[in-house]
Amino acid sequence: MSGLDYLRLMQSGELPPPPIARLLGFRLAVVEPGVVVFECEPGEQHYNPIGVVHGGLAATLLDSAMGCAVHSTLPAGAAYTTLEIKVNYIRAISAATGLVRARGSIIHAGRSTATADGRLEDGAGKLLAHATTTCLVLRR
Amino acid sequence: MSGLDYLRLMQSGELPPPPIARLLGFRLAVVEPGVVVFECEPGEQHYNPIGVVHGGLAATLLDSAMGCAVHSTLPAGAAYTTLEIKVNYIRAISAATGLVRARGSIIHAGRSTATADGRLEDGAGKLLAHATTTCLVLRR
Amino acid sequence: MSGLDYLRLMQSGELPPPPIARLLGFRLAVVEPGVVVFECEPGEQHYNPIGVVHGGLAATLLDSAMGCAVHSTLPAGAAYTTLEIKVNYIRAISAATGLVRARGSIIHAGRSTATADGRLEDGAGKLLAHATTTCLVLRR
Amino acid sequence: MSGLDYLRLMQSGELPPPPIARLLGFRLAVVEPGVVVFECEPGEQHYNPIGVVHGGLAATLLDSAMGCAVHSTLPAGAAYTTLEIKVNYIRAISAATGLVRARGSIIHAGRSTATADGRLEDGAGKLLAHATTTCLVLRR
Repeated sequence: MSGLDYLRLMQSGELPPPPIARLLGFRLAVVEPGVVVFECEPGEQHYNPIGVVHGGLAATLLDSAMGCAVHSTLPAGAAYTTLEIKVNYIRAISAATGLVRARGSIIHAGRSTATADGRLEDGAGKLLAHATTTCLVLRR
Repeated sequence: MSGLDYLRLMQSGELPPPPIARLLGFRLAVVEPGVVVFECEPGEQHYNPIGVVHGGLAATLLDSAMGCAVHSTLPAGAAYTTLEIKVNYIRAISAATGLVRARGSIIHAGRSTATADGRLEDGAGKLLAHATTTCLVLRR
Repeated sequence: MSGLDYLRLMQSGELPPPPIARLLGFRLAVVEPGVVVFECEPGEQHYNPIGVVHGGLAATLLDSAMGCAVHSTLPAGAAYTTLEIKVNYIRAISAATGLVRARGSIIHAGRSTATADGRLEDGAGKLLAHATTTCLVLRR
Repeated sequence: MSGLDYLRLMQSGELPPPPIARLLGFRLAVVEPGVVVFECEPGEQHYNPIGVVHGGLAATLLDSAMGCAVHSTLPAGAAYTTLEIKVNYIRAISAATGLVRARGSIIHAGRSTATADGRLEDGAGKLLAHATTTCLVLRR
């Protein structure tokens, strides 16, 4: 199955969400070739000691969105592994932020590597964090 | 209270763990000036769709350890905010990995910025991920 | 003088190019609010031991373009300093590549920090490298 | 020839320095398994418009040192390509800084990827910049 077909089965609910998505409360919202969006409603369960959402939530959402954006470009039989992510935190997130969306977009889909970037925004489109990733692509 | 005193109260349990630590299951294990270690037992609740621990867990642990390493160098009245993290994933993590430790160490503690690095290792000291961070320091 | 006015004087030649631009052979080509482009003709003088252009040239061009994109958003009396850059190398560059253009674009222009990204392309718009930066902004 | 043997021929002068090293004025000073040091005397020819050394010099030195640290771990017949570098600038550099040394050290030498970090220091060991890199390793 191609990456795009696999992600569409997950987005439609025909494949169950992974455990991390249930634990943190996020879901696959949009799947297109080269673009994937995850959604999450941040809450107090995500808070760090100073009473705002821990940066790890933004990192997790962006990692997911960017990795799946890479996956969406892969044919059947190819796989990828994330080598590194880089996340810039722009604005604090709290339960008052409301629904946030992490959009991952492919930058470069190469034979043995791929890169993508990501933006995490609130419902009004305000930028909360942005990121890039480098992935290793494994082809048959 | 200095950052070091604050972190020691959290490490001893006199301050309660933050919600994110309860949600993901990690705890503050070591606090020294410029060095902080978090521990976590990865489990199936952290898994991504391909049956290994989601990279977001390593990012969260390293973000915590590096941010607290910066915090441990700050006097009373100073605060910090994380501007960015960069995480390299080296080895896959699963429930079979056992206890992992994220060690954050200060690199540069400046007047208005600070940097730190982090290493995530398994019980045998095998490197699972490594990271760096840049923080903004706010002094009175 | 605002950052934009300063950069326009440099682009028009009313201010002399800095020594590094003469040494490496690059020039300021486009200045708009939030967007700056540098141009360079890579040559054998930029080669590393394996006979392609050293990655440091791409890093230098992207650092310049992204830093100046931040600068172009600053009013008179404000200054910036680059805290970090992150560069992904996508394609090898050689003397046969011809003119390359590094375009820096502001992502977030905040009160005390700013971020930007950059793309290095050849004359046909093929992506050679991409980058992000985090800057500290100093206001009066 | 192994990477270590190749680098030692370059360090001893039996192989000529690459053009970029002549252009910017840096040289290979130390080669050990997993550790490589480059030296440079920053001067006014490296200055940016505000009268300090352009960040691109530090990026170039650290990229060289980290890439060669990876190379030093490779057997004959293996090659590497740098996927990305990440550089934190800590202190401004000028002609008054004197000799600087960029030390690259391997972090992880894997089958298909490798990572390294780097530190750029002045003659007194004061930290000027630090960096990490991710490389793709190509084995026969």
